[in-house]
Amino acid sequence: MYADITSPDTALSAALQARIDGKTKPPGSLGRIEALAATMGLIQQSTSPSVRAPHIVVFAGDHGAAKVGVSAYPQDVTWQMVANMLAGGAAINVFARQAGIALSVVDAGVARELSDLPATGADGTRFVRAKVAAGTANYLDTAALSSDQRDTAIEAGARIVRELAAAGCNTIGFGEMGIGNTASASLITAALTGAPLADVIGRGTGLDDAGLARKHALLAQAWQRAGAPRDALTVLAEFGGCEIAMMVGAFLEAARQKMTVVVDGFIVTSALLVANALAPAVRDYCVFAHRSQEPGHTTQLAHLAAQPLLELDLRLGEGTGAALAIPLLKTACAMLAEMASFESAGVSGKSA
Amino acid sequence: MYADITSPDTALSAALQARIDGKTKPPGSLGRIEALAATMGLIQQSTSPSVRAPHIVVFAGDHGAAKVGVSAYPQDVTWQMVANMLAGGAAINVFARQAGIALSVVDAGVARELSDLPATGADGTRFVRAKVAAGTANYLDTAALSSDQRDTAIEAGARIVRELAAAGCNTIGFGEMGIGNTASASLITAALTGAPLADVIGRGTGLDDAGLARKHALLAQAWQRAGAPRDALTVLAEFGGCEIAMMVGAFLEAARQKMTVVVDGFIVTSALLVANALAPAVRDYCVFAHRSQEPGHTTQLAHLAAQPLLELDLRLGEGTGAALAIPLLKTACAMLAEMASFESAGVSGKSA
Repeated sequence: MYADITSPDTALSAALQARIDGKTKPPGSLGRIEALAATMGLIQQSTSPSVRAPHIVVFAGDHGAAKVGVSAYPQDVTWQMVANMLAGGAAINVFARQAGIALSVVDAGVARELSDLPATGADGTRFVRAKVAAGTANYLDTAALSSDQRDTAIEAGARIVRELAAAGCNTIGFGEMGIGNTASASLITAALTGAPLADVIGRGTGLDDAGLARKHALLAQAWQRAGAPRDALTVLAEFGGCEIAMMVGAFLEAARQKMTVVVDGFIVTSALLVANALAPAVRDYCVFAHRSQEPGHTTQLAHLAAQPLLELDLRLGEGTGAALAIPLLKTACAMLAEMASFESAGVSGKSA
Repeated sequence: MYADITSPDTALSAALQARIDGKTKPPGSLGRIEALAATMGLIQQSTSPSVRAPHIVVFAGDHGAAKVGVSAYPQDVTWQMVANMLAGGAAINVFARQAGIALSVVDAGVARELSDLPATGADGTRFVRAKVAAGTANYLDTAALSSDQRDTAIEAGARIVRELAAAGCNTIGFGEMGIGNTASASLITAALTGAPLADVIGRGTGLDDAGLARKHALLAQAWQRAGAPRDALTVLAEFGGCEIAMMVGAFLEAARQKMTVVVDGFIVTSALLVANALAPAVRDYCVFAHRSQEPGHTTQLAHLAAQPLLELDLRLGEGTGAALAIPLLKTACAMLAEMASFESAGVSGKSA
């Protein structure tokens, strides 16, 4: 089913490295920026990779379990924040505008009817209507998503990315908004990395000690109810939010389209764990924006052998980490395209 | 002498924190970005700080000791790289252009006569002629700078910053170019932090094991010759380059002008150690861009109780780390200025 998702050809590696080493700087002295240039060159199969029409897509969805107290905030915040994004006032609006990144917000499965929201927001943010369900079922009682809902969400995520690729985007980041979705991400992470569930549960948006204890108890109950599943698609249906399932499809399609995917924090990476289990080549199209304060993110990054670019103690979501990292990708590409070589600049090399 | 360099008034802290906490995000969820906004707000004494006319000034100078083998590159690379910067081809040109930062290159003490270089470079980079000496003396034999040269350099650095402040710049980064200047920085760092000299010597632009052993031996000899000095102005004359002395003046003036200074890597921070010893309030105007791969940088950062924003394994110099960090400062300011508040956006707060 995923045979068309293949790793980049590494034959270009030597030429890329030679081009990087010929620039007027000691070899390796630009550290992670050089590595980033090499990664993007391989993905784009070019010694002059570029960041074209960068885009962040924020997937929003509600969680049945949010009503029983896995979050510090009420469920209404999900739709209120979607409205805030269309008004241009959320952190991701500000961060994306600063970095020249286009923004889309997707109703993947918000509980509230959102017909009153505009198709285009105050700052040009695009609103995509793709509601799969008015929030998921409560995974304490039953699977969060039916297999139909899950597959519909995966296909919708793929379609959104396919359309952006067709419009010229080659660099994409995903973000999410969904009260209760760190809880979903913890369950998915435990299932797919093999880490103990208790080790990958955190405070999310800011639970106090009592709230954290309640979250631990509820998630242990859900984990047992579902029978500790390990199959990626089963895990996604049991615990996933609509927004997480849609990101799974988005990751798969981005790799199929050979885009560079800038991976945000804990919830986005839980979707990547599912996509990576289905098609391991997806990992090769990813660069990792930042390390979230949410403890399970470090478990995920280790599982994916990923070293993030930034460590800024973020734990907001919305794709904010991805937005901060995209300028580094642009700079890495500009380094390859615009820096002089020792030869062209007439600069002496190392002493004998 | 430095009584006019004073710390920011912290009375604004509570109002700044309240403004940050009122934004539509869980308190603290933007981590270091929030802290950056608070720091810049205090420096500018405003709850709406801004990054205005950001500028990076690269100070270039040669070192007498470079001729005896403390670097992997020949001394000619210093002037060749100044020429490369004016041609727009160095890493700092590319990084500054990407981030919308203006660039000046200063001949602080390059060995070669540079009268053939233009006043304005290919990409608008400004060339400032402020040569104090045609390279320093060799600190293996005598003090690198006379006290007159040192004081002239400090005053020149201050003048350059004063003129940029008068032209509207409120955010400045310093960079440097000088074959042999990690060796100078190691001597200064040992003298002013009290760390053992051997612990703060690194490979610089890429010495091999034999070269590193030679650098250790030579610097131990210089340290002994100078009598292990500890007084900041003496240390600067004994070991400093013209570019380092000029940065000392630049740091002092930037603090006097209440600018935000974005501190680059190992050599720039060695100048900050001198400025900080002369006027400790200078530290309060600094944000730390990145942690260099050069091991002594970590010693410096610990001495200054500084946590850098980025860890990207850079070790190039030129101000490249500062250029990568300035977009984070812009985003922090935009967060304060442009994000909606819970109240203005009608978003619910935490559940009771």
